[in-house]
Amino acid sequence: MDIESTAQEKARFCGIACGSAKALPDMLKAKVISIAKSIMKLGQDDPRRLIHSLKVGLALTLVSLLYYARPLYDGFGVSGMWAVLTVVVVFEFTVGGTLSKSLNRGFATFSAGALGIGADYFAGLFGKQGEPIVLGILVFLLATAATFSRFFPRIKARYDYGVLIFILTFSLVAVSGYRVDELVVLAHQRLSTIIMGGATCMLISIFVCPVWAGEDLHRAVASNLEKLASYLEGFGGAYFQYDGSGVVSKDGKSFHQGYKSILNSKNSEESLANFARWEPGHGRFRLRHPWKHYLKIGALARQCAYQIEAINGCIDSDIQASQEFKSKIEGSCKRMSAECGKALKALATAMKTMTDPSSTNPHVENSKAAMKDLKFALKAASLEDEDFLAIVPAATVASILVEIVKSVEKISEAANELSQLARFKKVEPTVSPEKPQQLLHRGIIQPVLDADSNDNVVIAIHEISTDSPENEKPGHQVPKPGQRFMEV
Amino acid sequence: MDIESTAQEKARFCGIACGSAKALPDMLKAKVISIAKSIMKLGQDDPRRLIHSLKVGLALTLVSLLYYARPLYDGFGVSGMWAVLTVVVVFEFTVGGTLSKSLNRGFATFSAGALGIGADYFAGLFGKQGEPIVLGILVFLLATAATFSRFFPRIKARYDYGVLIFILTFSLVAVSGYRVDELVVLAHQRLSTIIMGGATCMLISIFVCPVWAGEDLHRAVASNLEKLASYLEGFGGAYFQYDGSGVVSKDGKSFHQGYKSILNSKNSEESLANFARWEPGHGRFRLRHPWKHYLKIGALARQCAYQIEAINGCIDSDIQASQEFKSKIEGSCKRMSAECGKALKALATAMKTMTDPSSTNPHVENSKAAMKDLKFALKAASLEDEDFLAIVPAATVASILVEIVKSVEKISEAANELSQLARFKKVEPTVSPEKPQQLLHRGIIQPVLDADSNDNVVIAIHEISTDSPENEKPGHQVPKPGQRFMEV
Repeated sequence: MDIESTAQEKARFCGIACGSAKALPDMLKAKVISIAKSIMKLGQDDPRRLIHSLKVGLALTLVSLLYYARPLYDGFGVSGMWAVLTVVVVFEFTVGGTLSKSLNRGFATFSAGALGIGADYFAGLFGKQGEPIVLGILVFLLATAATFSRFFPRIKARYDYGVLIFILTFSLVAVSGYRVDELVVLAHQRLSTIIMGGATCMLISIFVCPVWAGEDLHRAVASNLEKLASYLEGFGGAYFQYDGSGVVSKDGKSFHQGYKSILNSKNSEESLANFARWEPGHGRFRLRHPWKHYLKIGALARQCAYQIEAINGCIDSDIQASQEFKSKIEGSCKRMSAECGKALKALATAMKTMTDPSSTNPHVENSKAAMKDLKFALKAASLEDEDFLAIVPAATVASILVEIVKSVEKISEAANELSQLARFKKVEPTVSPEKPQQLLHRGIIQPVLDADSNDNVVIAIHEISTDSPENEKPGHQVPKPGQRFMEV
Repeated sequence: MDIESTAQEKARFCGIACGSAKALPDMLKAKVISIAKSIMKLGQDDPRRLIHSLKVGLALTLVSLLYYARPLYDGFGVSGMWAVLTVVVVFEFTVGGTLSKSLNRGFATFSAGALGIGADYFAGLFGKQGEPIVLGILVFLLATAATFSRFFPRIKARYDYGVLIFILTFSLVAVSGYRVDELVVLAHQRLSTIIMGGATCMLISIFVCPVWAGEDLHRAVASNLEKLASYLEGFGGAYFQYDGSGVVSKDGKSFHQGYKSILNSKNSEESLANFARWEPGHGRFRLRHPWKHYLKIGALARQCAYQIEAINGCIDSDIQASQEFKSKIEGSCKRMSAECGKALKALATAMKTMTDPSSTNPHVENSKAAMKDLKFALKAASLEDEDFLAIVPAATVASILVEIVKSVEKISEAANELSQLARFKKVEPTVSPEKPQQLLHRGIIQPVLDADSNDNVVIAIHEISTDSPENEKPGHQVPKPGQRFMEV
């Protein structure tokens, strides 16, 4: 087959050499179409990208007016180019990014300009001969010190661009001061054009289809919780779905791998939180919204994702799991994972609607109750006739699920803290907590003699499994995690 | 106690109000000392930071000569400031970063300058009235298209800065062309000063104490393997060290938590790999060193770190583990983790010395043999009198260790691939592989009747445990992971 097709291809290429001139435009056309498709896809995945590009074009065209309009040009002269330069470098995708860069640039230019003029005056005291030497030393010292300060994590996170512009402006002002006499006029012109460029960017980014870093962070963290929830809600059904061989079907395993994107979410969350701090109050967020707290929830979500990654590894285990043992823990495990999923989904919804997430507490309590059931079941399980090796994979899954329950409890606590700090509005709980009596009864082990079974213990899991994900309404919409992530 | 000390403090503050004027310099002094200390620490953690700062100062002072030296100034005029600007913005910590930015800036300035002059000529065809409108439209279109292209991941990773400078230069040239007649002269001056500034940065960054991104990546990946190794080598001893209660002592658990930094290493590795591609051959690295392959090893190391994170969670489990069961799996588990640790350490050493890592294969084989031993031990274990709940934590640890063994095998394969791609030098293996007969014998379960034990199975772990970490030479130096990471 392969040889045949290669020969055919050769014939096609050698034989129709004369046709290649004709084929070239076709190839070019195909290439152009493929590029156009990828451009379309990029725009469709997040239409805000296209809008951002148009906004940059608009801002740049607006500041170009400084050159075209005679009265403005007469005021600023060639300094108008600083406005163009400012627009190109400070216009970021999010409002917070643009504000952070604009303000950093403005303040750094102002302070470095003043310092530069001072340095120039100071150097002038040393006479025509000494001036360049003193200025050189000053530039060297300041550039070295300022560059070093950029290694401090706190400065790096918030003022990196400001320090860069500080070095830049100081060097320019101090050095050019040696030649240009009207230094103050130059510094003033530069500062005012930068303020103009920066103001244009800030106004356009805030008032024309704004992309708020804070809102993005808010949605990203909520959507991460949803991704975890999707996995956990699907997990019980997939893991305990038998295909006869005792191995989990690959189809069943492919449910919602969206959680994987959470594993490496730290950097993007941190930069969004840094930008969000620069943003004014917007929509449902106050000026001093506790953005830092989102990082805490994000870190806990990552912790949970690590555990899911471990459980995902266990599913792939080549050791055949014992059906019998699996059926013993099925009820409580399914319930643990389903209730954790429900709790996380409810937390995500509460975050999105900015309502008090205490309505999720029953789910957390249910998952903890299921965890206790599991412990009872394990304590009472008698395993004399079991192949112990076959038990290990399922026991591991159960054990990691226990860790996940604890992790979800921590996430729930952190979300409640956020709700208090950000004053989410209180609502009547829609999920009614289960009655405590029922909690005490549920999952209790009833020693029953069963003729068909080798065990002397049977766990009453029938009433429990009504909670499990398979029995959910078919219309229940699980959000596509990939899609949501692209929106962020 | 607390109230007392608060009262004392109050008295101190109220009573000596007059002394506050005297205390202020002391507080200032303390503040200055604390800042000085943190500066010292930052410099000591990685002295290259200080050197980098001095290099930036040097480069900036050198390009300032453009202004001070009369013959140079006469040639370039105020365009000399572009050289200063270029140095400040393109000088990065690593050689690759500096080269990437310099070359991006150079090529973008050249192409955008040419395009800008073309646009200016084209707009001139529309007469004095039409020119600004045509130019405005062109700037708008180009800025929008170029900004959108920055969202493509491939362009973002390698040419982001170039596109930025392209927009900048095109706008400046196109717009200022409307006023300045000697456009070509200006473009030429700008380009030559940028080349001067860029060349200064490149030369200083390559020849004065260079910081190679490639070498950093190489070291970072090797050091990550070492961190995993440190954990795994310490794990067996710590987990199976009893303090009577059956709970792992907290002291034992605090060994080498350095692996945690690996969990979020993706971004820094990717940016180092991106920079490394721009670097010329240096030291032991050829020009086309397979930098991309390091990302593969890095990803596998992260996978292993996730599993270690899961195993770390199990150690904290509140379920009391059964001593008896733990002792059954102790031998093989200790051997698995110790051999994995040795394999990773040998891989790290092989990477650092750039020698063929096939000498690590015996360790990988040993860990796989220990995994088989564990399976035998589990298969044969009879547990009728055990509390099953108490077995779960240890079974989970064993099960995750099995996953770690597989993970280490994959890392070893990837490292071997790298060795072939990068042509690491071959060496005689220093670790002699164990004889196959011994492998077959080792850890085989011998049914023995033991009067003291309730089990009917005893595993021969005595010869195995000579491999375990406690028995290693006391002089064996484990690298401090934190320290190494700071160097990277």
